[in-house]
Amino acid sequence: MTDALRTDLYQLTMMQAYWHSGRNPEATFDYFIRKTPAGSYLLTAGLTYFLDYIENLRFGDDDLDYLETQGFNPEFLDFLRDFRFTGDILAMPEGSIAFPLEPIIRVTAPIIEAQLVETYLLNRMNFSTLIATKASRTVYAARGRAVSEFGLRRAQGNAYLEATRATFIGGCASTSNVMAGKELGIPISGTMAHSFVTSFDREIDSFRAYADTFPKKCFLLIDTYDTVEGAKKAAIVGKELEQKGEKLMGVRLDSGDLCELSKQVRKLLDDAGLSYVKLVASGDLNEWKIDEHMRNGAKIDIFGVGTELVTGRPTPALDGIYKLSDVVENGIHIPKMKLSEEVLKTTLPGKKLVWRILEDGMFSKDVISLEGEVIAGAEQLLVPVVKGGKVIYERPTLPGIRNRVEGNLSKLPDRFRKLEDSPVYPVGFSPGLSALKKKMVEKIKHEEIGLD
Amino acid sequence: MTDALRTDLYQLTMMQAYWHSGRNPEATFDYFIRKTPAGSYLLTAGLTYFLDYIENLRFGDDDLDYLETQGFNPEFLDFLRDFRFTGDILAMPEGSIAFPLEPIIRVTAPIIEAQLVETYLLNRMNFSTLIATKASRTVYAARGRAVSEFGLRRAQGNAYLEATRATFIGGCASTSNVMAGKELGIPISGTMAHSFVTSFDREIDSFRAYADTFPKKCFLLIDTYDTVEGAKKAAIVGKELEQKGEKLMGVRLDSGDLCELSKQVRKLLDDAGLSYVKLVASGDLNEWKIDEHMRNGAKIDIFGVGTELVTGRPTPALDGIYKLSDVVENGIHIPKMKLSEEVLKTTLPGKKLVWRILEDGMFSKDVISLEGEVIAGAEQLLVPVVKGGKVIYERPTLPGIRNRVEGNLSKLPDRFRKLEDSPVYPVGFSPGLSALKKKMVEKIKHEEIGLD
Repeated sequence: MTDALRTDLYQLTMMQAYWHSGRNPEATFDYFIRKTPAGSYLLTAGLTYFLDYIENLRFGDDDLDYLETQGFNPEFLDFLRDFRFTGDILAMPEGSIAFPLEPIIRVTAPIIEAQLVETYLLNRMNFSTLIATKASRTVYAARGRAVSEFGLRRAQGNAYLEATRATFIGGCASTSNVMAGKELGIPISGTMAHSFVTSFDREIDSFRAYADTFPKKCFLLIDTYDTVEGAKKAAIVGKELEQKGEKLMGVRLDSGDLCELSKQVRKLLDDAGLSYVKLVASGDLNEWKIDEHMRNGAKIDIFGVGTELVTGRPTPALDGIYKLSDVVENGIHIPKMKLSEEVLKTTLPGKKLVWRILEDGMFSKDVISLEGEVIAGAEQLLVPVVKGGKVIYERPTLPGIRNRVEGNLSKLPDRFRKLEDSPVYPVGFSPGLSALKKKMVEKIKHEEIGLD
Repeated sequence: MTDALRTDLYQLTMMQAYWHSGRNPEATFDYFIRKTPAGSYLLTAGLTYFLDYIENLRFGDDDLDYLETQGFNPEFLDFLRDFRFTGDILAMPEGSIAFPLEPIIRVTAPIIEAQLVETYLLNRMNFSTLIATKASRTVYAARGRAVSEFGLRRAQGNAYLEATRATFIGGCASTSNVMAGKELGIPISGTMAHSFVTSFDREIDSFRAYADTFPKKCFLLIDTYDTVEGAKKAAIVGKELEQKGEKLMGVRLDSGDLCELSKQVRKLLDDAGLSYVKLVASGDLNEWKIDEHMRNGAKIDIFGVGTELVTGRPTPALDGIYKLSDVVENGIHIPKMKLSEEVLKTTLPGKKLVWRILEDGMFSKDVISLEGEVIAGAEQLLVPVVKGGKVIYERPTLPGIRNRVEGNLSKLPDRFRKLEDSPVYPVGFSPGLSALKKKMVEKIKHEEIGLD
């Protein structure tokens, strides 16, 4: 099964319309995000998937047979049989910090090709970027305490693996998702469920059975019946482990007032001489709740975060879009834009680049320019990843991407990382882009809407 | 690649702990949902995936090699090499109406087996049920107008295919997702994007090119520059099509005040003698907005719904859970439950069944009972789907599931379908279950928490 049909029908109908009209000009599209789900910045992820797709983009016989049943022109389907992506792509590397309106990926190709790849690009980039951004905020809220991702059971079905990958890019320490451990090399972690405890006649029997099986990595879930009573039993088992020369690694709290309970459990364990035992807390956590717990002095060492982290709740989708910005007709670049009464839905015309200006080593301002303009003293962020249809970019390892993220976040001033009320990061337009935009708005108002 | 490692690490550590303790009693777990994402009911979906998984559940050599690197006991891994699911499963058929707390799937198996399957079950059932439920509400809001799913670009990555499947189960008429057409036989639909319009020098040129390519199924997107001006150009192209003996099928509005614009566009088209042209509306729609448009007399024939439909926004995850309810020790059933200060987190003990009482052919009340109890005049909803590890249930086709949904929804009184302020559907406990629950609470308070 190829991924060629992982697209919206209208991409294929538009492709046939272009083909039918004998019209296949070189076109440039920008992938950008209109607004962040929360906070000031976006942490980009998903480029690896898109490049894999570009590399393998083919229509299989079964794809073409299906399209024939849907009334597509047989000659057009013959054209698709030999379809290859032949264009050029620039992109911010995976793990970049981006801001609204900045092109994150720029695709230049014959319009029939550039149009097809839109849906796949949006489907993969929007989701991975959403979750990587969410994870980086969650990790920030934990102020150096570890965040472990526990979301597999609440992940949106088959999205589970890329969800975990994105949380790792965003800084999570580990995952409960064993497949992500095997397939992606992400550290895995886990303890026990309430069912393990309730399956035994007495809670302490379940603790002893687990400690006996995993004396060197024993975490006990203590809230099945009552957290504080559970902690007392965990302390007994902790002392029993000491007598065998082992140490209880941790206890997990999964319900109730996690902050208050963590203090009681911490004291109870400390009083029992078990100050080395770590506290794991889980249960409907998110960046805001973690932040509140930390501000209230919670004695939590590891936060287990599930649902919100892997679905992006309360914002489960980014409104990233892919918009035409330039078409070449008879060798001449014709910039394109979409106007809208909704300001955010108006797009930026022309082939563009993105520049970042640092001050004292910290991100200070970005500028979106037209190609050909140079912003002095700034770093250009879009790098060539595909040239003439060939992927020329060496996809980094997952640890490599994480390193890039850490480097980038260390240069983002702290005010832009705040969970609430973080300021808008300054993104300006170059003189060339500003002038073009103004000219285009006037032209469209005149020609298409009949305003003067 | 098998799906055996599509699970949380703690399932595997608990399995080793059971194995190590020589403890593998028969256990029963219930899958149920604590609360609806919105409204009174849940429309179940995803069972097909779970049964496919049960049928194919094996640990591959690569899975076991990976687990060995994670410190699992080699003898336990040998045990996993021959692992097969051998238990019994009851379930509500896909496309059932369920209510909170009702077991939707009941798994009975040696606890090592029953524990492993939890994560996969939750991952697939939670998401498909969430989206099918959302879709059925969206279709209800449209009052007989078609709802077409356009969400692929905003779907959570690889969740895209099961998302579309669930929207179809929930009553959507079609999808933009071509893969869902090919793989699942769902009707596909689509028009054109703004980029098609802007790629031409003039809007009307793009309309003519499209009409020329698809004279028999031409839908024109009219809001690229200005919706009413776009409609005027569409009317010109519609009249040109008439001269060729063809008919313009529709126009699509994708921004602005959809209700008001639909009225203006409808009048404009009617005045041009194009009253047969359909209006499609899209753009951040959901069940509440559709409901409002319909109440305000919008002239919309087809609603295109994307992001919210395929992600479940604002609630992108169901809190469906899988809880131990019974363990057999020495041939005796020992009911199990989890207590919590949070009422919703307390579980129901014992092996259970679910019964539905109809009045005048309409759903009137459900009763959760213990196995062995009979609720007179009621239909029992859980059917055997797996027996001794073998799937004995014939998985229905997708049209078959849709028929079931339609039949079920026609028996659900309208007040339970309302988008807002729908009442809680009555779900009672049988005398046996009520008595057992009371006894268990007392026992746990006494033995585990030390209360009298």
